[in-house]
Formats: sequence, C-alpha cells, structure tokens
Amino acid sequence: MNSFTITSTEDIKKKNNSLSSATAKIKSVRNLMSKYKIGAYLIPRADCFQGEFISENDNRLRWITNFSGSAGLCIVTMKTIALFVDGRYTIQAEIEKNSSKIIVYKLNKTIIANWFKKNVISHDKIGFDPWLHTWNEIQNLKSEFRGKYKFKKVKNIIDKIWIDKPKEEYHKIFKLSDKYTGHSYTAKLAQINKLKNNFKVDYIIYTLPESICWLANIRGFDIPNTPIAQSYAIQKKNGDLNIFIKKEKLSEDLVENFGPKVKFFDISFFSKKLKKLKGKIWLDGNNCPTAVRSLISSKRNKIFNELDPALSIKSIKNKVEIRNSRIAHKKDGLAIINLLYWIEQNKRSRISEIDIIEKVAEFRKKTSNYFGPSFDTICGSGPNGAIIHYRANSKTNRIIKSGDLVLIDSGGQYLEGTTDITRTIGFGKVNYLKRKQYTLVLKGMIAVSNLKWPLGLTGKDLDSIPRYHLWQENLDYEHGTGHGVGSFLSVHEGPQGLSKRNEVELKSGMIVSNEPGYYLQNSHGIRIENLLLIKEPTEQSQIEKIKTLSFETLTYCPFDRFLIIKDLLTIQEIEWINSYHQKVIKKYEARLDGEKRSWLNKICSKL
Amino acid sequence: MNSFTITSTEDIKKKNNSLSSATAKIKSVRNLMSKYKIGAYLIPRADCFQGEFISENDNRLRWITNFSGSAGLCIVTMKTIALFVDGRYTIQAEIEKNSSKIIVYKLNKTIIANWFKKNVISHDKIGFDPWLHTWNEIQNLKSEFRGKYKFKKVKNIIDKIWIDKPKEEYHKIFKLSDKYTGHSYTAKLAQINKLKNNFKVDYIIYTLPESICWLANIRGFDIPNTPIAQSYAIQKKNGDLNIFIKKEKLSEDLVENFGPKVKFFDISFFSKKLKKLKGKIWLDGNNCPTAVRSLISSKRNKIFNELDPALSIKSIKNKVEIRNSRIAHKKDGLAIINLLYWIEQNKRSRISEIDIIEKVAEFRKKTSNYFGPSFDTICGSGPNGAIIHYRANSKTNRIIKSGDLVLIDSGGQYLEGTTDITRTIGFGKVNYLKRKQYTLVLKGMIAVSNLKWPLGLTGKDLDSIPRYHLWQENLDYEHGTGHGVGSFLSVHEGPQGLSKRNEVELKSGMIVSNEPGYYLQNSHGIRIENLLLIKEPTEQSQIEKIKTLSFETLTYCPFDRFLIIKDLLTIQEIEWINSYHQKVIKKYEARLDGEKRSWLNKICSKL
Repeated sequence: MNSFTITSTEDIKKKNNSLSSATAKIKSVRNLMSKYKIGAYLIPRADCFQGEFISENDNRLRWITNFSGSAGLCIVTMKTIALFVDGRYTIQAEIEKNSSKIIVYKLNKTIIANWFKKNVISHDKIGFDPWLHTWNEIQNLKSEFRGKYKFKKVKNIIDKIWIDKPKEEYHKIFKLSDKYTGHSYTAKLAQINKLKNNFKVDYIIYTLPESICWLANIRGFDIPNTPIAQSYAIQKKNGDLNIFIKKEKLSEDLVENFGPKVKFFDISFFSKKLKKLKGKIWLDGNNCPTAVRSLISSKRNKIFNELDPALSIKSIKNKVEIRNSRIAHKKDGLAIINLLYWIEQNKRSRISEIDIIEKVAEFRKKTSNYFGPSFDTICGSGPNGAIIHYRANSKTNRIIKSGDLVLIDSGGQYLEGTTDITRTIGFGKVNYLKRKQYTLVLKGMIAVSNLKWPLGLTGKDLDSIPRYHLWQENLDYEHGTGHGVGSFLSVHEGPQGLSKRNEVELKSGMIVSNEPGYYLQNSHGIRIENLLLIKEPTEQSQIEKIKTLSFETLTYCPFDRFLIIKDLLTIQEIEWINSYHQKVIKKYEARLDGEKRSWLNKICSKL
Repeated sequence: MNSFTITSTEDIKKKNNSLSSATAKIKSVRNLMSKYKIGAYLIPRADCFQGEFISENDNRLRWITNFSGSAGLCIVTMKTIALFVDGRYTIQAEIEKNSSKIIVYKLNKTIIANWFKKNVISHDKIGFDPWLHTWNEIQNLKSEFRGKYKFKKVKNIIDKIWIDKPKEEYHKIFKLSDKYTGHSYTAKLAQINKLKNNFKVDYIIYTLPESICWLANIRGFDIPNTPIAQSYAIQKKNGDLNIFIKKEKLSEDLVENFGPKVKFFDISFFSKKLKKLKGKIWLDGNNCPTAVRSLISSKRNKIFNELDPALSIKSIKNKVEIRNSRIAHKKDGLAIINLLYWIEQNKRSRISEIDIIEKVAEFRKKTSNYFGPSFDTICGSGPNGAIIHYRANSKTNRIIKSGDLVLIDSGGQYLEGTTDITRTIGFGKVNYLKRKQYTLVLKGMIAVSNLKWPLGLTGKDLDSIPRYHLWQENLDYEHGTGHGVGSFLSVHEGPQGLSKRNEVELKSGMIVSNEPGYYLQNSHGIRIENLLLIKEPTEQSQIEKIKTLSFETLTYCPFDRFLIIKDLLTIQEIEWINSYHQKVIKKYEARLDGEKRSWLNKICSKL
C-alpha cells in the first residue's frame, strides 16, 4: 500500500540554518510586532489541529529557531528571545538553536511566569495566533497573569515573513475497513450521540484529526508518522457528522461510499458553520483552538468544556483492534529481530547510526500492510544516546565503537496497528557500570510488565514502581514511564499514560508503552520499551482477594543478554526474562532460516 | 509529671446506648429542625478547633449515633439518618450504631452528593453549626450543589438537647522548655513574621491549637492523647501573638513568664477582636471554622487563604527535636519489648486484648517524662484485628487463642516527642497463609524503610511502593501508608504523609509513619509500623548521580520472626531484617536483665 510522502526535513534545515538568516528573521518578526503594537509574540510548535506531529510547512518554531523537537514555545520580545522546551529536549535545543541570542529554558509554568515578570513590562500586550493556541492554554495564561498583561489575537507573523515556505501537498484520504477498526462509523457515531444526549448537548465540535479519523474510520497522509487527515468536524443534534477538510483531499469514490450520516465540506466552510451554531456545545478546551471558541456566539450558546468524547472511547481498544495489534506487533518484532541479526553480522564493519536507521526502515518495508514509521527512528550511540529524543543527521552521525551502548527506538504504522519498541544493545565489551545501569532499567521494565494493581488507579499511582531500583543507586530518568498508543493512529495517544502527572484511570483495553531509561549526558543512554495491553480484570475468586488489573505484553523481541548482570536480578526477574525469551523463540523461529534461527535460539537461551 | 485526666469513655457510652434513647434523640433533633426550617442537619465529628481528637463533651456525633471513630459525618433529614465514615470505620460503624435506622455510607464526596440528590428535596435548607465546619468545607459543598440547596447557619441542635453533657474540665497550661522545643517562641514568631511580611499580610489568624502550642511553646490537657491547649490566636502586624483561651486554664506564673510578645486573653474576646481586624488577613480555610471567617468584615479586608504557616514549619523537625525524638523512641521501644516479653511469658494463660492494653500502659508509665498514650491503644486479636481502628471494650474483648494474630498499635507522649508503633504477633502455631501475608506486609515495610527517592516528590508518589508485593497476590490495604507525627503534639500531624492523595513535598526533617497492613474481615488483621525520619539529602558526589532523600528509622523493636517466611524474602530484605535486629540488641541489651536479655538475643538472632 501507499506510504507517507513527505519533504525531507534535512533539505528544509539546510535552507534555514545560517546565522544571518536567523538575525534577519527575528528583525522581521520585531518589525511586525511594532506594527501590531505587541510587546511579546508567542511562536508555539503547533499547527491549528494541535497534534504532536505537524507538517513542515507548519513548523514555524523550527523555521525561526532551528529547534526540531516535537514540543516547545518561543517567545520574542524587542530585547530577547526565549525558547522553552521540556526535559527531553534541553540538550538538543542548545545544540540546534540558530542564534546565541536564543536563551533555552525549561518548559514549565512557573519558569515561564517568572520569565514574563523579568522580561515583559506590565500592561504590555502579548500577541498570539488564535488558531495555534488552545482555549484553555490562553485562559490559563490570562488567569496566571491576572490582568498584568493583555493578550492580543494577531495574524500569524511568521506566515507573513516565511517566503520560501514549503507548499502544502494534498493527498486523498481513504476509508479504513471495519475488519481493522472493529466498529463501523455508524456504531461509533451512535455511541457518542447517546453520551451527547445524556449531557443534553446539541453539538459536539471535534478539532483533533485523530478523533475525526477514528470516528469516521478514515485515514490520510497529511503529516509524517501519523496517518491522519487534517480536518475539523461537528456532530449535529441528530448524531450525524459534518467533516470539514480541504476538498482536494476528497475523492468522489470516498464521498459516495459514505451513507447519509457523514457529510464532507470544504474546510473553508467551518468558520461559517461555527457562527451559526445555537444550543449547548461540547468542545474540549484543552485541544480546541482559541479561534474556534471565539467563532461561537457566546450570547446564545452554552459551552460544555469537557474531554473530547472520542478520546476516551478510542483509548479502550475493541476486540478486533486488540487482535490486530497482536498481528502488527508480531510483524514488527520480526523486523527488529532482523535488524539485530544484521547488526550482529556487521558489528565489526564500522556501521553508523544512520546505517541502522536505514536498515530499520528497510526491514519494516518488507512487512505487509506497512505504511511507514510511527515516528522518526531514534538511534543514539554513545553520548548521542543521552539525548532523549535524538535524531541523527549528517553532522551528528557517529560510527559505533566497541564499548558503546546503542539505543534504538522506532515504531511502525500498519493497517493492523501502531507499534513502538526500544532496545538498547552493546557493541563489543561494555563496562560493568553501563551493564549495571542497563540491568537496573530492565528490572524496572520487568516490575511494570509483571505488575498487578487494584482497579481504579491511574498512571501517576504506578510511575514510581519502575524507578525504585534506579533511585536506590541515585539514578532516575526525566520522562514518564509510558504513553498511550493508537490503533493505526498516533503513537502518542491520550488520555491515559504512566507518568507522575497522569490522573486518568487505567482500564482494560488500553495500550501503554513501558519504557524506563537512564541517561548520562555526554556518555550514554539506556531505554528498554515494550508495548503493553491492559487485560480484563482477574475474577474475584476468593472472598479475601481484590480484583486487579495486569498487562499482556504485545512486543516480542530479545533483550541484549550480554548487558544483563544476572547477580542483580531476583529469581522472579530471571524467570520472567527466560519465559519472555522462550516466547520470542516460539513466535519467530518458524519464520527464520537455519543460521538466523540458531542465532535467535542462542541469544534467547536461558540466563 | 502530670498525665491526662479524662472521663472514661466507657461510662459515657453506657449512658447513651439504649435504642429508646436513640429514637428520642432523633425525635428531638427533628423537632428543632422543623423550628429552624431546615430539611437536613449536619452533625460532624468535630469541635470548634478542627482537631482529630476531641473531648467527650464535644463528641456530638457519638452522642447521637454511638459511633466512636475519629472521623465521620451524620446527616439527619425528616425521613432518614445517614452516617458517613471512611474505609477504616465501615465495619465499626455498623457494629456501634445505636439504631437500625442509621444507614452507614462511605465518606466520599461523590457518595455524599448522590445521597443528597436522593434524600434531600431541591431548594431545601441544610442546617449547620458554623463553628464545627471549616470555611473551605462549606464553600466546597456550596459549589458542589451550585444553588440546588441553601446552607443555613443555626445554633447547635445537639447542644440544646444534650442535657447530661459531661462538664468541661479546665486544666492549667504549661510552658515547654526550649531544651525540648529547640527554638524559642520569639524565634518562631520572628520566622513567621518574616514570611507574613513577604506576602504583605497584616494579620494571621490561627485556629488550630497544635499550631498555637507549637508557636508559643505551650502545652495543655484539654483533650485525650494530645497535649494541646484549646485556643485561637492572632499574630499582629508587629509579629506579636495574642492567644485566646479559657481564662481558667491560665496561671499567673505562666502569663508572667512570657515576655511582651505573647499576650493572653479570655476566649470570649476572640469574636470581638476578629470583627475589628482591618487589612490583609491570612487564614487557612481548610481549618478555619466558617464562623471565624464570617466574623471578619469582608468589606474592608482582603483574605489570604493559604496553609497555616505554622503547619509547614512545624513539620520540619529541628535538631533538638530530632535528638529528643530518638530518645523518646528508645524509651518507647523498651516499653514494647517489655510488653512482648510479658506476652511471651503469659501466652499460655488466657490473656485478653484488654490485658495487653493495660500492660502497654503499665510499661510506658514506668518511663521518664511520659505523659500518656498518643492515641487509644489498638489491640485486635483474630477477627478484631481486621477492624482497622478497633478499640477493645468489655463486649468485644477476646481471650487470645492459639493460631491468632494479634495487632498491637500504640504510642506515647513524652516531653521528648510523640511515638507510634505497631507490631503484629502470632500466638501458637499460625497457619501458612497468615504468615505469607505477614511476610508480604513486611516486605512493603522494608521497601519503604530502604527507599531512596529524588528530591521534590510527595507522598502520593511513594504510596504504591509498599503495596507492590501485596498487589501481586491480589491483596491491598484500605488506608494510607503513613502519616506525619508531631513533637510532643498530635500523633497525626500534617501536612505531609505517605498516601495516594498527599501532594506535599517530602523534606528532610519530617517524621512519617510507615505502616502497611492487610485486613481480612472476620478473620485477622496485620499491620507493621515504624516511625521514620527523612534524612538530609545525599551529597551529589558523582556527576551522574542525582540527590536523593532517604529515611532514618526511629522505632526499634523486634518483629515476630516466627511469622516471617524466609523463602519469600530477597537477600537484601533478609539483610535489612538482620541488621535491624542487631541494632535492637545493641540498643537494649544493656538495659535488660539476664533472662530477658537472652530472650531478646534469641528473637533477634539472624534469620
């Protein structure tokens, strides 16, 4: 089948990378700021659909700062330029920024608030593009500053000065068969309509393309890594869905294929439709652009600001999706086993990070129903492994040396589902300290894989479990333990997750990643990741027992046994690894030829 | 020194326990409800100081329902009587309630809200005594019901009909020497005054007696178990403190002993003083009675509703308090070791729960500077052990049988500090299942004792750690893992704690209990508890290491080795127990005579 066709990000970067260009850009931004009478201008890493992945012609943050990470906020004033990025990206932002005048800060509410106090004069106006900021985001900023600053909606400044912006390409969207989605779009519409009526809501506004694609069982090629079609939608009083999308992306076939319950309109009609709405309107302020909220008349309407209903229903995978996810993971695991074998064969011939990235792609492309990567493959060797969301390029690419750890984090988009797997492998003789750290990370990964927990808990209740053994050695990792994963949709899918801040109840049918790690700046990085499915709760067979939830592992692919220090493991942990490796052999040995098979048997033999 | 002199709760109970009396009481309540034109009346288990322990003449909830637990809320309507109690008390409330017409519910926001929907007609008025409910509590209820019900302040109905209410007894308060408090009251006042000025606050209103006693270094005998003096206080613009207290509790000596910075007034002047305040006023809405808030003019004042500043400062023990706490724990551990020896000697002679409770008191009374128990001793054998906050009485008292587990949870108030310790011991041959459960609880207790964690975490981040091994066997406990503990103050002291909901940062100098458990209704209960002090963070000796916090164990007293199944422990856990028991021997063997000493050596020998 088709695969994503996107402009190479390398090409774009070259164009925008020179310092003179950076200075000129900021000068132009400041000229327009003067014209708009604003003292600060916000440049978020967002498009008007608020997804994690955006197309390059929406990457205004990279164009202005050269920072390529998947989250961040640049604020320009007349005197200074601040770039706020989260813990994953602080090292990367320092390396990538195109001007020494850009000061990198941690993306954190308090830090931003303090920055404003120091750098923006009271009563100055803060300019922002209302399509690129969610309603809640702006409301929170307003209440944070309690009138100290005024917020002013302005036309996007970057769009006015970004002359060589890549042209948008339009690809036709397609229907995803019920044999993959499990439920028809009519069933999904009916389910949400019932919920809508329970809350006496007249209209639901969907602004997340993932929600709309899931709801209508469509997919597209608008952005890298995620097979979504950028669109907005309104679910009407009677439960029918109107989808607003660039008409160039529609084929006659597709439109006709839909029954009367789903209608398509060109996206240019969306604003007009919003203005006409009358009644109680459901929107999700955490995702809904401020501009959308503003287009709804506040006089005659009541806003029901709650979580997008598609998000929570989508997070519980149905039986068909679960069956398919197991299939996708089996194919994906084989691709990575092939990669590991290739690395084993070529370890001594000066292979580089980019060689591995290309090989990952090559092996995945050989599998059926494969669409493309679910995110840009991370292959960080030695010190590059410590950059949590490292992307190798021609400048940073390293030839892997003996003694190196190599962190390979990648995933695939298959018709059957979305995958995400990380393995850290050793080259040559790896020192004891690194192997000890690897073993501690693995112990955490196993603790989560093996975990049972009482019904009703959330991600924040479980995030400490995999960290216990690391903490005991004064080590930790600065990211959550896991994120939700979509079904042939985004590889990072809410609302659930395993992290200190996630307060969404974990329920059977959810898929989450389990990826503890450890990173030592300028030295090495370790991460081990499997995807897990939350199983049906155990039966309460005995009176004294409570019902618990537990995980089914979806990802099967060997760990690097040479990095494991057996003495640091408990008997239960050793048994878990042995049993996991036995399952790997069982799943794949029939698919591998003689030499590869005996290699697999060897690396999966009992510890 | 003096010890607490309180009316026996047994006596009061007998008086109020007959059904006819219960019916008559409710009838009287409803008569007054009609007169006041209210559809529902709230009877909380609270006095006007919002502490955990209250004097019996304030225990209106027990008088009306006979429920004796330390938390609960009764709501009376014309048709029904609801008693809301938390997870610790559901069994106990069912047993104790004095009328079958009282329906017991779990104390939970959603359950209460739903109960109101079903049982109270819209626009009915809910009557409450504004001195017994905090400001935040009533504000939350109001916003929960969004105008559906009206709240009406009424004079306390129970006080009007409770004719044989025990008379309040007045005891003189006393000064606690700086050699126990570590800091003088002038230093404490100055520290908070600085904080007050930072927030540009004019007055601080203190409504928690613990805060006032800590701040002024005074103690009293007003309620059982906690050596506080019931009082209110106002810290003035210049930092001076005015304390409002029943004049009968003041001695001339004491008042004269204080310098000009602390002045005492009869409590009857408090309301008048409140009405006169003018400026920015700091009060803690979570503790401040609604009545206090209402007395402050809202026109000319600005309310700064934040955590009582004494709470957070008091939670970090100073060096003197820490040194003294170790002394208190050493004395207290010896008392419990003496108890365990006595039990060992008398195991075969039909001893009862109340025998043990009396012996606990007897051994503690022999120690120096002992004031009394820090809470009513819990001694639950067999099925009684499953009642989390069980209090043995003549009806429930059991003779302990072979095969029983006995849970003994007790603590003492010493001039040097407050203690709290739980040991679960076996009588005769205890079956494998109970021993296994004991071992799982112990593993959790050890995991916390041994824990290191990164700076900045809160109790909710750590509460899952001790539960891991229980969860794996589909077991859990329905209470938090630990609570803060005062210094010769309340045994339950906030704001910190180890529980799913506690969001207060854990800091060095805090004392918390570590008390995982397991309870099987109608069968047995297990809890093991030590108090822990959070140590200074480790030095960041190596670049790759993070700073971590860890615990110093304060409580030293043997575990029941015959309940431990060694095969279920890791080598680290066995080492921890052995090293702990070695320390017990070291601390106490010099204080024990020949036979007792060899017994201690035997029960503390290596596993």
